[in-house]
Amino acid sequence: MSQIKQLVLASNNAGKLAELSDMLAPSHIEVLPQSAFDISDADETGLSFVENAILKARHAARISGLPALADDSGLAVDALGGAPGIYSARYAGEHGNDAANNAKLLQALDGIEHRSAQFVCALALVRHADDPLPIICEGLWRGQILTTARGDNGFGYDPLFQPDGMTCASAELSKAQKNAVSHRALALKALVARLGT
Amino acid sequence: MSQIKQLVLASNNAGKLAELSDMLAPSHIEVLPQSAFDISDADETGLSFVENAILKARHAARISGLPALADDSGLAVDALGGAPGIYSARYAGEHGNDAANNAKLLQALDGIEHRSAQFVCALALVRHADDPLPIICEGLWRGQILTTARGDNGFGYDPLFQPDGMTCASAELSKAQKNAVSHRALALKALVARLGT
Repeated sequence: MSQIKQLVLASNNAGKLAELSDMLAPSHIEVLPQSAFDISDADETGLSFVENAILKARHAARISGLPALADDSGLAVDALGGAPGIYSARYAGEHGNDAANNAKLLQALDGIEHRSAQFVCALALVRHADDPLPIICEGLWRGQILTTARGDNGFGYDPLFQPDGMTCASAELSKAQKNAVSHRALALKALVARLGT
Repeated sequence: MSQIKQLVLASNNAGKLAELSDMLAPSHIEVLPQSAFDISDADETGLSFVENAILKARHAARISGLPALADDSGLAVDALGGAPGIYSARYAGEHGNDAANNAKLLQALDGIEHRSAQFVCALALVRHADDPLPIICEGLWRGQILTTARGDNGFGYDPLFQPDGMTCASAELSKAQKNAVSHRALALKALVARLGT
């Protein structure tokens, strides 16, 4: 994979773009935003983070003609059989938001003692749309679901997630602290290791 | 995943079943053959080993009602853009065989000096058909494609594959030697590590 010089990130999230560009700098890979191309949203028809990440990467590569990297991530709660999982962003409905999703999660776990969960990030990198060997890296960040929201940083379920080994919610971590240990950081580190420097 | 006590192996290959049962013995997981159920072949519509392994595992889990493990594996030759890849078994056509596949590969690489390649094995384990968190493990075994076939052991492209660090073809390795270092062994070791013992 060392021949890759440029790739498109199949995301409109500026934060992800900056984080990824920084981590791939030693690999001398230029990360281009999806907005540089007319890339519509891919149909996320997969049943897992990995399948959706591959679908999104193939879609971006098909439209841009360049190698493409996509991520798919979310929260999987053990007592809920892995829910909200790939539906994390729309757990409370298509027009829901972080607050509604968090409220629904608290309700689903009301009275449940076993509150272990994990944030999952799947990354898929394809050299071209039909690449037979996508590079796939996953990062898992384990923790417990709190009974009340804490902290204002981060996004999504961060106020309800207490990482294992910590005494605070992930929404109480600074961006730098979170980016050093999160599921996305772990997946990116694995990707950088696979790409070589 | 430690709660898994039984799983179906989505394969009719007795060798794979034996190897997997041995490796999963410390995890106290009983491996059942696909033949114990009326499991038809899954449609392998994916574009990569990983996607096909997930498809096969979901299919076996759907029919058996049990957790299921599937593998998809093959040879990816760098100078051929990853071919024969997911088409390794039918490279020379639906009715081809190992000899025809090997002959076609030699012809495709005729006169080509850069002969690096890798055997790839993707394993996918799902707890149920719609499992949102399949466990995916890959094993890569790198080497070079020889200019003439060597050895009678193994199967598939083993007579043409010289593993990096070795001076023989993989078809000249004993079964035990191959099973200690092959792409499938590496993927299985990663799986066992993920499952815990």
